[in-house]
Amino acid sequence: MTETAFERRTRACQQRLRDGAGDLAVLFPSRNLFYATGFDEEPQERHLFLFVPAEGDPTFLVPDLYGSQVESESWVEDVRTWSDGEDPVAAVEDVVADLSVPADGHVLVDDTMWALFTQDLEAALPDASFGLASVVFDELRVRKDEAELDALRRAGQLADEVSVALRELGEEVVGWTEAELAAEIESRLVSGGGESVSFDVIAGSGPNGAMPHHTHGDREIERGDPVVLDFGAYVDGYPGDQTRTVVFAGEPPERFAEVHGTVREALEAGVSAVEPGVTAESVDRAAREVIEDAGYGERFVHRTGHGVGLDVHEPPYIVDGNGTELEPGMVFSVEPGVYLDGEFGVRIEDLVVVTEDGCERLNESPHGWRVGDSE
Amino acid sequence: MTETAFERRTRACQQRLRDGAGDLAVLFPSRNLFYATGFDEEPQERHLFLFVPAEGDPTFLVPDLYGSQVESESWVEDVRTWSDGEDPVAAVEDVVADLSVPADGHVLVDDTMWALFTQDLEAALPDASFGLASVVFDELRVRKDEAELDALRRAGQLADEVSVALRELGEEVVGWTEAELAAEIESRLVSGGGESVSFDVIAGSGPNGAMPHHTHGDREIERGDPVVLDFGAYVDGYPGDQTRTVVFAGEPPERFAEVHGTVREALEAGVSAVEPGVTAESVDRAAREVIEDAGYGERFVHRTGHGVGLDVHEPPYIVDGNGTELEPGMVFSVEPGVYLDGEFGVRIEDLVVVTEDGCERLNESPHGWRVGDSE
Repeated sequence: MTETAFERRTRACQQRLRDGAGDLAVLFPSRNLFYATGFDEEPQERHLFLFVPAEGDPTFLVPDLYGSQVESESWVEDVRTWSDGEDPVAAVEDVVADLSVPADGHVLVDDTMWALFTQDLEAALPDASFGLASVVFDELRVRKDEAELDALRRAGQLADEVSVALRELGEEVVGWTEAELAAEIESRLVSGGGESVSFDVIAGSGPNGAMPHHTHGDREIERGDPVVLDFGAYVDGYPGDQTRTVVFAGEPPERFAEVHGTVREALEAGVSAVEPGVTAESVDRAAREVIEDAGYGERFVHRTGHGVGLDVHEPPYIVDGNGTELEPGMVFSVEPGVYLDGEFGVRIEDLVVVTEDGCERLNESPHGWRVGDSE
Repeated sequence: MTETAFERRTRACQQRLRDGAGDLAVLFPSRNLFYATGFDEEPQERHLFLFVPAEGDPTFLVPDLYGSQVESESWVEDVRTWSDGEDPVAAVEDVVADLSVPADGHVLVDDTMWALFTQDLEAALPDASFGLASVVFDELRVRKDEAELDALRRAGQLADEVSVALRELGEEVVGWTEAELAAEIESRLVSGGGESVSFDVIAGSGPNGAMPHHTHGDREIERGDPVVLDFGAYVDGYPGDQTRTVVFAGEPPERFAEVHGTVREALEAGVSAVEPGVTAESVDRAAREVIEDAGYGERFVHRTGHGVGLDVHEPPYIVDGNGTELEPGMVFSVEPGVYLDGEFGVRIEDLVVVTEDGCERLNESPHGWRVGDSE
């Protein structure tokens, strides 16, 4: 992502502050800070903040061991450092004084900011009121820009490549445990360029596939087992997330082909319903109706999907009761499923981006349950 | 660990609150919460708190999907739940009302508690003042109880076993990359019973060993290379951490044997200095003097050690200027090192527990640099 993309996002945050959200946003190592600057570290015990005032330019305050990295890698020009011998609270007070934020202003802090840091900010701004930065960032992050879509497309492509390669294993997978299959998937995602897996790989075989939260265990995959494969990996900070349900060898149980066909049809109905202006819940409805009409409504036990961005689960949630109207640039999963206790489960999932007149799919690997299927 | 051990720790926290630290401690998913109850999850967006008042019994407030787990696994009897349809802030207010904490009381919150949660606590207790739970927990956690020492001993034993097994590889390691060696170490730690590695495995070969923060890269290990091996894994929530510097095959560079001998002597001097009542900095001094006397003082570029407990770096820090007096039950590393830029590095590290009359070592694998050495 370019420096310009990061600056554009921060300027959009400032516009929302001026529109009434607050006088100052303060970020620490978080997905919001990555979104605004590209700074990508875990929270740690040393004070590290980005101050984004409603007016003017932002200021980074970082421990001196991060100084040269932040100066060279971030678009932010005002980078201040403090060293282990200094008092970070005094450094915070200095920055706040220079920002000319009203003493009784409203300050938004990262939702995940540690009390260790919010207590110091509250001490430095004793008359300010405090709110959460998600008020501004959730609305910005829900519509992805081109740089984000590019990363999400590559994460989708990586999941596709691994999905296709898994199908080619066919018979070879019979006798592996779910854990061995999951390890193989993780290894292929990482060697294919993924930074890390988006979540614990799900490889639910036979009756284990009927438990939507089962990840993988020591059950051996048998001939004829349907296997729910749900996985993805991060590329440039954005996760892939794709599900296919396949049979590696042999003939599946009775009813499986019928159920798989129903779920596949529900996926298509959900994806077809996506366009700007329709509500999130109407996409859920479109997919759910297909499954209800086939008599499996009670067995579709979860929402139809979730937004995907810097977080693998984020708004918009594709769920009954969510009247959010879809807008171009929103990215979410469509993942209907049917779970038959003690028998098998079927889930099929693609990610989509809302476009001006419908949607674009981020996953294109075959949906069919036979590993030889070409679509 | 037994339920009794967890309760004993929480009661000790309450005693410190009554001794003046505050009226209420509020924990969320953190190492402190694990310490007090055994609850071991990552922070997440749903409200989950343990309220520990100065007087009376603690109360858990958890999302209902955690209700039965917490009721069955924790010693805390008052477990309240809230469901996704309810307002968690109202649930927080209900608990606070029942605790009979003074309205203008002093409330300690987990240092890492998210702003998303502290803002709700501040709204529920508008006249209270807020501080950090580390004020109470750091002092408790620095002295390990028998259950903790047992876990730390087993983590030490696991590191020892892997260390001994690595030595047996000998010649075989020549030609491996550092990354391959690190992966082999991680795999042995996990298959030997470790929950996860304590930190990124360090396998610094040849000149890379002279960079204390280098973890591992694609450099191939050559005959005669000294290799700094620093690793450990968690056992029952407590980390191992051990360093050895070995030569897998061939003859090491000039000066290496001498430097290794100096560092080994510094380790022994540091460990010998450990006993109740001496200061943390005096252990640093004892180890550092040996290295200074050998003429390598400038090349020992870091502190001599750090405390080890639920966090792999925690108090007491074994560093110049730390006048903390050692007490029985404190656990820390003694890890002198000498780093010769562009040539090689040597670091040797054992963990020790302070006992009534000295210390107990948690690591017993051979210290010698020849892989055939038996001590």
